[in-house]
Amino acid sequence: MAQNIYDNPDFFAGYSQLPRQVHGLDGAPEWPAIRAMLPDLAGRRVADLGCGFGWASRWMRGQGAAAVLGVDLSEKMIARARADTADAAIDYRIADLETLDLPAGAFDLVYSALAFHYIADFDRLVRMIGAALTPGGDLVFTVEHPVFMAAAHPHWIADQDGRKTWPVNGYAIEGERRTDWFARGVLKYHRRLGTTLNTLIGAGFTLRRVEEFAPTPQQIADMPALAEELERPMMLLVAARRA
Amino acid sequence: MAQNIYDNPDFFAGYSQLPRQVHGLDGAPEWPAIRAMLPDLAGRRVADLGCGFGWASRWMRGQGAAAVLGVDLSEKMIARARADTADAAIDYRIADLETLDLPAGAFDLVYSALAFHYIADFDRLVRMIGAALTPGGDLVFTVEHPVFMAAAHPHWIADQDGRKTWPVNGYAIEGERRTDWFARGVLKYHRRLGTTLNTLIGAGFTLRRVEEFAPTPQQIADMPALAEELERPMMLLVAARRA
Repeated sequence: MAQNIYDNPDFFAGYSQLPRQVHGLDGAPEWPAIRAMLPDLAGRRVADLGCGFGWASRWMRGQGAAAVLGVDLSEKMIARARADTADAAIDYRIADLETLDLPAGAFDLVYSALAFHYIADFDRLVRMIGAALTPGGDLVFTVEHPVFMAAAHPHWIADQDGRKTWPVNGYAIEGERRTDWFARGVLKYHRRLGTTLNTLIGAGFTLRRVEEFAPTPQQIADMPALAEELERPMMLLVAARRA
Repeated sequence: MAQNIYDNPDFFAGYSQLPRQVHGLDGAPEWPAIRAMLPDLAGRRVADLGCGFGWASRWMRGQGAAAVLGVDLSEKMIARARADTADAAIDYRIADLETLDLPAGAFDLVYSALAFHYIADFDRLVRMIGAALTPGGDLVFTVEHPVFMAAAHPHWIADQDGRKTWPVNGYAIEGERRTDWFARGVLKYHRRLGTTLNTLIGAGFTLRRVEEFAPTPQQIADMPALAEELERPMMLLVAARRA
């Protein structure tokens, strides 16, 4: 099963203080880019994989989704999601994306934010999602960008001019990466960007959009610290459609 | 027009000594990966954009292509291609990909190796290629990988363990990059990987395969210097099909 770092008390305490957990979707600078990739939600049956506190599940329901299933491995996250939600059309379930099996053809949209890089068997997951979608259904997801994840020591360095620079090594060597992020040894899985896309194509998806999030000039004016996101891609956003 | 660095005498002298120019396709370690992305060539009408000395044009004709048009900006490259080719079904033409206009629906396959990163207006080029292909026709091309091209100082550095590491900065800042490679100030155009793919999707192409070339264990055993290509992606290989 996937490592359940989110139920580690130290991790949970730190993670819960992230702007995107305190302020919800508007605390995530990539949210406008994700929104632009989402289909019309009216009447859609949605699965939100790695739903966390349920911010996106509730937003999608508010946009007219007929029903939303939020899935997360973390008992603490699901408990908080349930506590924060009063809507019979939103259902939360504790489950491991490594083994989750959704009913066939039961969804029109599968959405996932920053969860799939914790999954070892991406091919299995993508094929399961393909089967769970109706024909013409959409998969929209974000993951940590492989350029951000690849290196043995993924931390800012300076180039010869003192400019913020991101180190890349081991890019072609896929598999486990361990980093310290609110807790020691958080386990992620590095896949080349090409591998992620070819896995989708191989499972019968058509790629509709591939974004490497970068802040807009207005976002940088509002929050100057975001400027460093111009230097290297941190997040990959993908929209794909089932044939 | 695109910078015609290939007709610079210093550049041409150095470039002509590259293994891939001396030994042809077998001198290019990515060639087996490209071959695996090419459709069956029998009876196909092919355009080879940035054909250089014509190695790929001749190979494709040898695989049964009905006719091959090789296009290159460099008079020296085209002169050598013509001198090395004795086949009435292969035609070479001097032209700038920045302004090239191929006849509509005249080709079944457009191929290009390591040329498109010299082109400023990639959107125009891709739409022109789309119009030049028959419905169901293929576009297979390679470019320098944006991770390889992005940084202000794109040269190997060492990480804290002494491991070969590639610096990335300015990834989201698209546009001109100048490097010294056999000549000073070789002009290339950096585009994010997502931009390259979204340009294809926007022009009506379906993505069939996205590869970030990495050498096989056998290739590294045969040529140990290739091991560094595991550390960072140098080349992007794309196969797309016109709807």
